[in-house]
Amino acid sequence: MVEAGPLVGIVMGSKSDFKVMEGAGQVLSELGIPFETRVSSAHRAPARTLDYARGAEARGLKVIIAGAGMAAHLAGVIASSTVLPVIGVPLSGSALRGVDALLSTVQMPSGVPVATVAVDGAKNAAWLAASILALSDAPLADALRSRREDMARAAEEADKPVL
Amino acid sequence: MVEAGPLVGIVMGSKSDFKVMEGAGQVLSELGIPFETRVSSAHRAPARTLDYARGAEARGLKVIIAGAGMAAHLAGVIASSTVLPVIGVPLSGSALRGVDALLSTVQMPSGVPVATVAVDGAKNAAWLAASILALSDAPLADALRSRREDMARAAEEADKPVL
Amino acid sequence: MVEAGPLVGIVMGSKSDFKVMEGAGQVLSELGIPFETRVSSAHRAPARTLDYARGAEARGLKVIIAGAGMAAHLAGVIASSTVLPVIGVPLSGSALRGVDALLSTVQMPSGVPVATVAVDGAKNAAWLAASILALSDAPLADALRSRREDMARAAEEADKPVL
Amino acid sequence: MVEAGPLVGIVMGSKSDFKVMEGAGQVLSELGIPFETRVSSAHRAPARTLDYARGAEARGLKVIIAGAGMAAHLAGVIASSTVLPVIGVPLSGSALRGVDALLSTVQMPSGVPVATVAVDGAKNAAWLAASILALSDAPLADALRSRREDMARAAEEADKPVL
Amino acid sequence: MVEAGPLVGIVMGSKSDFKVMEGAGQVLSELGIPFETRVSSAHRAPARTLDYARGAEARGLKVIIAGAGMAAHLAGVIASSTVLPVIGVPLSGSALRGVDALLSTVQMPSGVPVATVAVDGAKNAAWLAASILALSDAPLADALRSRREDMARAAEEADKPVL
Amino acid sequence: MVEAGPLVGIVMGSKSDFKVMEGAGQVLSELGIPFETRVSSAHRAPARTLDYARGAEARGLKVIIAGAGMAAHLAGVIASSTVLPVIGVPLSGSALRGVDALLSTVQMPSGVPVATVAVDGAKNAAWLAASILALSDAPLADALRSRREDMARAAEEADKPVL
Amino acid sequence: MVEAGPLVGIVMGSKSDFKVMEGAGQVLSELGIPFETRVSSAHRAPARTLDYARGAEARGLKVIIAGAGMAAHLAGVIASSTVLPVIGVPLSGSALRGVDALLSTVQMPSGVPVATVAVDGAKNAAWLAASILALSDAPLADALRSRREDMARAAEEADKPVL
Amino acid sequence: MVEAGPLVGIVMGSKSDFKVMEGAGQVLSELGIPFETRVSSAHRAPARTLDYARGAEARGLKVIIAGAGMAAHLAGVIASSTVLPVIGVPLSGSALRGVDALLSTVQMPSGVPVATVAVDGAKNAAWLAASILALSDAPLADALRSRREDMARAAEEADKPVL
Repeated sequence: MVEAGPLVGIVMGSKSDFKVMEGAGQVLSELGIPFETRVSSAHRAPARTLDYARGAEARGLKVIIAGAGMAAHLAGVIASSTVLPVIGVPLSGSALRGVDALLSTVQMPSGVPVATVAVDGAKNAAWLAASILALSDAPLADALRSRREDMARAAEEADKPVL
Repeated sequence: MVEAGPLVGIVMGSKSDFKVMEGAGQVLSELGIPFETRVSSAHRAPARTLDYARGAEARGLKVIIAGAGMAAHLAGVIASSTVLPVIGVPLSGSALRGVDALLSTVQMPSGVPVATVAVDGAKNAAWLAASILALSDAPLADALRSRREDMARAAEEADKPVL
Repeated sequence: MVEAGPLVGIVMGSKSDFKVMEGAGQVLSELGIPFETRVSSAHRAPARTLDYARGAEARGLKVIIAGAGMAAHLAGVIASSTVLPVIGVPLSGSALRGVDALLSTVQMPSGVPVATVAVDGAKNAAWLAASILALSDAPLADALRSRREDMARAAEEADKPVL
Repeated sequence: MVEAGPLVGIVMGSKSDFKVMEGAGQVLSELGIPFETRVSSAHRAPARTLDYARGAEARGLKVIIAGAGMAAHLAGVIASSTVLPVIGVPLSGSALRGVDALLSTVQMPSGVPVATVAVDGAKNAAWLAASILALSDAPLADALRSRREDMARAAEEADKPVL
Repeated sequence: MVEAGPLVGIVMGSKSDFKVMEGAGQVLSELGIPFETRVSSAHRAPARTLDYARGAEARGLKVIIAGAGMAAHLAGVIASSTVLPVIGVPLSGSALRGVDALLSTVQMPSGVPVATVAVDGAKNAAWLAASILALSDAPLADALRSRREDMARAAEEADKPVL
Repeated sequence: MVEAGPLVGIVMGSKSDFKVMEGAGQVLSELGIPFETRVSSAHRAPARTLDYARGAEARGLKVIIAGAGMAAHLAGVIASSTVLPVIGVPLSGSALRGVDALLSTVQMPSGVPVATVAVDGAKNAAWLAASILALSDAPLADALRSRREDMARAAEEADKPVL
Repeated sequence: MVEAGPLVGIVMGSKSDFKVMEGAGQVLSELGIPFETRVSSAHRAPARTLDYARGAEARGLKVIIAGAGMAAHLAGVIASSTVLPVIGVPLSGSALRGVDALLSTVQMPSGVPVATVAVDGAKNAAWLAASILALSDAPLADALRSRREDMARAAEEADKPVL
Repeated sequence: MVEAGPLVGIVMGSKSDFKVMEGAGQVLSELGIPFETRVSSAHRAPARTLDYARGAEARGLKVIIAGAGMAAHLAGVIASSTVLPVIGVPLSGSALRGVDALLSTVQMPSGVPVATVAVDGAKNAAWLAASILALSDAPLADALRSRREDMARAAEEADKPVL
């Protein structure tokens, strides 16, 4: 899947998060953006997680997407150890339905931001990563613009009386 | 303040949002990133807001930061009309203390992401913008890395017995 | 279904919202109020949505009902571009069960109101539209009054010991 | 204040609600819409409140605005006894800051809608009432359209660099 | 089921509430307390509901239990028109899972209390009614005390190692 | 203040709760209902609290009002050890503004009800106690009915144009 | 299961809580920590619950784990009557999905702490108990450290590309 | 303040947290338990924070108390790198008043528990630490038991009529 080297790292706290997080991979694949996926828990493997964050830039990654549920520290922990943009995806698989993960991901203190998307919003994390990469990748920017036009056209076609 | 041309647009829904949003300007100034500030309400001036979003890329902007309160649609409306990365800052100045603005900003549907930061997190919006710009600006990346080291050093110095 | 020209526009953010929003159509049909249904996303088709809102009055619409979920901006975006009364229906199909859509719809800033009904309250949106139209449509007002009497009579009949 | 006869009734649960609810009166005054204000508690004076609702249409009222806090039943009780459009304003003056009033006002059962605006959104209640009245009052519709243009112009003027 | 005359009135907003509210009837039946059940909506049949409340004392009722969901005004409306103790049961059958009904029932303004029990707590409403009636019914008080001893004994028996 | 013997016990978790709970005493005083006030924490003095609950009936108390904040267990603990009706007043003096106390008080399991009133609703607890006592105290019932008429009359007088 | 004498008491409010609470037993069994399980409701059997708490230390228990739902007072009541560390597990089986139990368990007043874990976090309660017991049990501390290494190793193995 | 070597480490995310966290130090001082205080942010100084956690056991610490606000990861990050019991204190100093910090602290995934106390509950964190240390420190256990008796006696004295 990865040709050159991955530009986006998709990290998730546990394998069970994959059923939501694969949405990010699908979008990146569609756009031809090379990525890698990793399972790394901020709590069960803190050192590995920090190491991953610290080494990301040198390995050529440009954006990291981190999805986690409950007291979702994964994105914040990664953001603490890299200057790359980090996108957080709060996951809903708990009794509190993701409110816990949302607040744990978005309410970061000044100086260490996490770009948070909607609860279970893995696809949007990928779209956001693409918009960031497109700043220095003209063909990707073209692809994003085309897709917006497609979306508008699709909307035009869909916009017919439903009843 | 702006030398070359602004790279970041800081937009806010009303002038009263400036007391929080100026935090974003301060961080960008510190880092020497040219920016512009605008007041544009998604609801009171929808056409101007869309026009601003549509024209942003051509005018050389790379990232847009949008701060708004209550049913905070500003970031989402802008994101709907540009492929630039859009960072949303939910503002707390309502009876519901920003929970309304947070959900209105972060819960975007698939395809149109908003990179959301903490309630009143204008400074983090700027740090996030900087981390995005640093992907293609090596001196800025150096500056961000230095700052992390400063933060770590400051933390080392601060980490003394308090009592 | 539409005889003269539609008086009410029922707009929804995506086709999947139809299963709730059709409730509005059923009530309007019962009352003989001509309406149209449209699918138009505030985020995926912002220009079309604004165009729809701007043209609504000239096309003879009197009330617009807008249903959307998550960061539900649809009603607010429409309200920003028409002086017609706009009724918002927050939809519950997200991890947060419609709290996000409710706050995104109801917490509008001063000057651009959205008449918000209950989460998934599409039928009530139609009843509200009817009460508005009845102000200048005496037979419709009669129909609404009759229905209230029917409701009271039905309540009288239902009000029997259940156990 | 009332010339012909009032077209809008502004009802509030207690005199202490006036400090928020007067915002509705100010907007209606600006627009030259005759209105009346009443204090009537759904709980302390239920019969009077129902009587007011039942008599409203005959007395020439077109829209009722009802503001209440806590378990805010006022708008719902009024809506149960008139076919006029009823606009509910949830008020924030409780420990729970208006979440209680918002849910008590907006979550109405099918058949008896309340057009709910933001917590403490008395002004928007008036703007919404005006948009309803404008459907059969061409000069008022003109006034509303002018005001939108003024808003857009004001937005244009305000939209200058803040920093 | 009713021998002498009912002492407790169980009122619910709609027939569909019966599946929870029958729990109240079961407890009262067990204790031999005569009761009646009624379906009466505060919003669809406001006059009947007020009439029921006003006539309750004269008909010999001692306590009224009112169960409703969403913007649950039923208990409050009844409490506004009787000096009998009114017990409110918030019901959970909405997108917001009963938080709306809980706040709409419990947050009553000073002077018109509703004795609120847990979301869907119909059985506890009946136990509370029994504790009130037992103040002037010595055999019922004995029955309640016996039951507490049974509960303690049952707890003693249940309190064995589970694993 | 207590003539015969107290009929109502007002218990609070700490002395600092008195500023809210004295509202209950004021209402009972107005109505001439003898009462006693106690400070007894469910957590700091569990045995005393249980003893108080167990002895309440024998000492002639008819109703117990319990006010507490945070994880407000006081009313529930008392209800576990008496068959008298127990009224819970959730207090707001915490970071979470009484939501914690409300849920801790109202969400009692089946068999051990607490009659919960609004956050900080000490006065309503007293009104509720009075409505319970009035079931077997005709002059008190008369007093409550008179007061309702006074309330209605006061409402009639207050119901004048505010603006 | 218990060899020497139990060191941990696992108490739950009702038998139906066992399906979650058995997770605590499984973890303790794995670690070879002797424990006992009890069913004891703070509300249905308050005296037994207090007796259990009071006698726990003398019987050799070192830590008590208490799991309960809704207005979850069990852990707090136990903590009020022992100086042993008490760990609270809020359970989610109510309409409010455990938010009620969480706040009722964690928001304890000063002087009587409950060590609260996640909603339905019975396993973590056991891990926490183990970390407490390990302070004076070197082999257990070794076991915990080994397990952390196992976790890290497992994380290393799991940390492979998912896609 | 520290005689032997500290047994408890009190860590806080920033110096501004000290005004709440000093409550923990006061309680430990009263009980004669040696402690140290540190300022270490999980996000601004992740490596130092992990180092502190990893070295804690070897330095003789027995319990770590960690207080942080917003997306409060401090306690979780420390818990990920030590087998010592870690007590989390969610702090309220944000727009969301500590709900964010509470959920970020308590909702830890299985295997890495944090013993969470109330929002701003620094004193209870110290009492909890003391109850843990008392398991192997008989005089401390005596002190805790005495204090409970003092609390009961104080409660007895306080339990006088307030009015």
